[in-house]
Amino acid sequence: MSSRPEDLRVRNTSKIVKTLIINPNLSRVELARILNLTKTTVSSIINKLISLGIVEEIEKDNSGSIGKSPVPLKIRSDAASVIGIGLERKDTSGVLLNPDGKVLESIIVHESNRKKEAAAKNLLKVIEIMLSKAREHGIEPNAIGIGAPGPIDEKVGVIYSPSGLPDWENFNVVQIAQETFKKKTYLINDADGGALAERFFGNGKELNSFVDIFFDEGIGCGIVLNGEIYRGAFGYSGEFDYLAFLGKVIGKGEEYFSLEKVLSELRIFLGKNQHQLGSVDIKEYLENSENMEAKKRFEEIYTELGRIASIISNLIGPEAVIVSGRMIELGDLFMKPFKNVFFKLQFGREKKVRLIKGAFPQNITYAIGAATNALLNHVIEKSIT
Amino acid sequence: MSSRPEDLRVRNTSKIVKTLIINPNLSRVELARILNLTKTTVSSIINKLISLGIVEEIEKDNSGSIGKSPVPLKIRSDAASVIGIGLERKDTSGVLLNPDGKVLESIIVHESNRKKEAAAKNLLKVIEIMLSKAREHGIEPNAIGIGAPGPIDEKVGVIYSPSGLPDWENFNVVQIAQETFKKKTYLINDADGGALAERFFGNGKELNSFVDIFFDEGIGCGIVLNGEIYRGAFGYSGEFDYLAFLGKVIGKGEEYFSLEKVLSELRIFLGKNQHQLGSVDIKEYLENSENMEAKKRFEEIYTELGRIASIISNLIGPEAVIVSGRMIELGDLFMKPFKNVFFKLQFGREKKVRLIKGAFPQNITYAIGAATNALLNHVIEKSIT
Repeated sequence: MSSRPEDLRVRNTSKIVKTLIINPNLSRVELARILNLTKTTVSSIINKLISLGIVEEIEKDNSGSIGKSPVPLKIRSDAASVIGIGLERKDTSGVLLNPDGKVLESIIVHESNRKKEAAAKNLLKVIEIMLSKAREHGIEPNAIGIGAPGPIDEKVGVIYSPSGLPDWENFNVVQIAQETFKKKTYLINDADGGALAERFFGNGKELNSFVDIFFDEGIGCGIVLNGEIYRGAFGYSGEFDYLAFLGKVIGKGEEYFSLEKVLSELRIFLGKNQHQLGSVDIKEYLENSENMEAKKRFEEIYTELGRIASIISNLIGPEAVIVSGRMIELGDLFMKPFKNVFFKLQFGREKKVRLIKGAFPQNITYAIGAATNALLNHVIEKSIT
Repeated sequence: MSSRPEDLRVRNTSKIVKTLIINPNLSRVELARILNLTKTTVSSIINKLISLGIVEEIEKDNSGSIGKSPVPLKIRSDAASVIGIGLERKDTSGVLLNPDGKVLESIIVHESNRKKEAAAKNLLKVIEIMLSKAREHGIEPNAIGIGAPGPIDEKVGVIYSPSGLPDWENFNVVQIAQETFKKKTYLINDADGGALAERFFGNGKELNSFVDIFFDEGIGCGIVLNGEIYRGAFGYSGEFDYLAFLGKVIGKGEEYFSLEKVLSELRIFLGKNQHQLGSVDIKEYLENSENMEAKKRFEEIYTELGRIASIISNLIGPEAVIVSGRMIELGDLFMKPFKNVFFKLQFGREKKVRLIKGAFPQNITYAIGAATNALLNHVIEKSIT
């Protein structure tokens, strides 16, 4: 870390913006206390942010109060608006997000993205749709966020053949979007984005550390330590594959049996052509069916997922585990056996790590995550000009 | 973090002491640059540390050099000496350590510690032996460190029934040692201690983040992030049990099949009464035996351990994985298949996470870790008086 005064001001501005996004209504005095800054520093930065149209003072009903009371502040709802895209194997989701964390519009396009060409087409199509939806609101989005499975390089904006997506070799999504729409575009790992959204707008606002585990098409997690996304030494963390599942690790030949493959078996097992994993269809089927074999199989799977969540929790030692992904839409059918095992296998006497459900509609959670990343980057860049 | 000037000075003193333990020979100017402190701050703290007998200036051969050159500094070899104890299920190890990371004496007592009473007796016995060995050197140790499997509470110095050690309920090892020997005693998780020793005196000196995985009696890991032991939100991290191993997770009845149990099977399989896992005996047996079934079984096990190491690495995303524990004494027999799988399953295109062998004799590595913890605590406390 540099100690040059201008860098210090950038860091402090960034801290203030982030804190106000997480906790609107804080006053200058409260910000100074929370961030361990002097009141002069906070006031100077806040005045700049007000003049830039980023922060506003909230009008209070002061009738009855005596003297001057602290003025609550917030990031203006119109300080920025961004489009977020969740680019996954089987669908592409899009949201329009403002600094209050409000999703103004959303869409999901269920078309395969297995081929890079198709994925690029769907990416541009969903951005295009979100742009026109935004313009119907009279909004011109400031930036675009893309969330995608890793390996990715966030800085150069490129995806490198994620598991199950061999065709996405050197997939330069940021360049493609920027050249088409002339808007600054940011790439983030999908699960990291999801965790970022929980941290700023969801169930991670009060948490200093948590793991956000996604049981969805793929499987992965975002890790927050010291209030920030933890990206590891080489730009990734929270990747898990090759965990044994229901006793199998190694598949035929040399190929390892990944959890992703097991999850896709779920739908095959039901013999239905489900749109999405954990859909209401599956829930209804399991609740009403007399197929005891299917019910037993699913309970085994949930128990295994609980074991895997406990392994991750015991390794990372977070304050809480947030469970996300379309699997949680199955409700208690999934959560009950999952929770039982999670607490049974949790390390330590006191089982202090809480289990929390993700805050967002799970079919657009990656898009919200990507939007959160773009929003933070855009607002902070605008703040330090 | 508080910003009171006296707290700032404590933090800076602690940083300087730690940096000098890791890198002896740094000058005041280099310390200032590395730690991003002013030269005045560094000089003032160094002068205090010299007057306390903690730091010394190293004499250089200045013949031929022109003018005043920076004076290298180090923590004095006699600034402190500590006893470290590794308290494990089947043995108790002890070392005498100085601030150069030099092990002056060591011992291993192979007696079962399954019963709390026996463990307490062995703990006191090994400390007693190390004390008299120290006194033969004319040294009176300043502090005692104990490393033990978790769950533990480092602050109150108590162990709470680790896996496989149900009798260690509320085992107040710190109180027992302190009351007997009237020396300040520090408790640390055994694997955390091992990682700390690698960070300060071993192969983690240059690493900002690493995971130190122990394949020994038990199995666990210590995690270093931002150069410091990462302890998680509730005092633990790096715990792993309940990982499936060779296709088995759940044992008979409700009991989960842990990796620890599989490791203990190794010795049973050989039908020998081995002192220690990964001993030279096992190595010789496997190298010379015609027992192809045993060889195959062991290779399967090493491959599984490589998979588990890759899972941990992919989750944490460290710069390097250090492999420790008596398993590594098997040499290439173990390391070759282990390494192959580790790199095969490593996340990312470039497989940047290095694999490094632990630096210490593995039968005393937990004792060295416990000693490192006591040494750091003692020297820093002495420095800020």
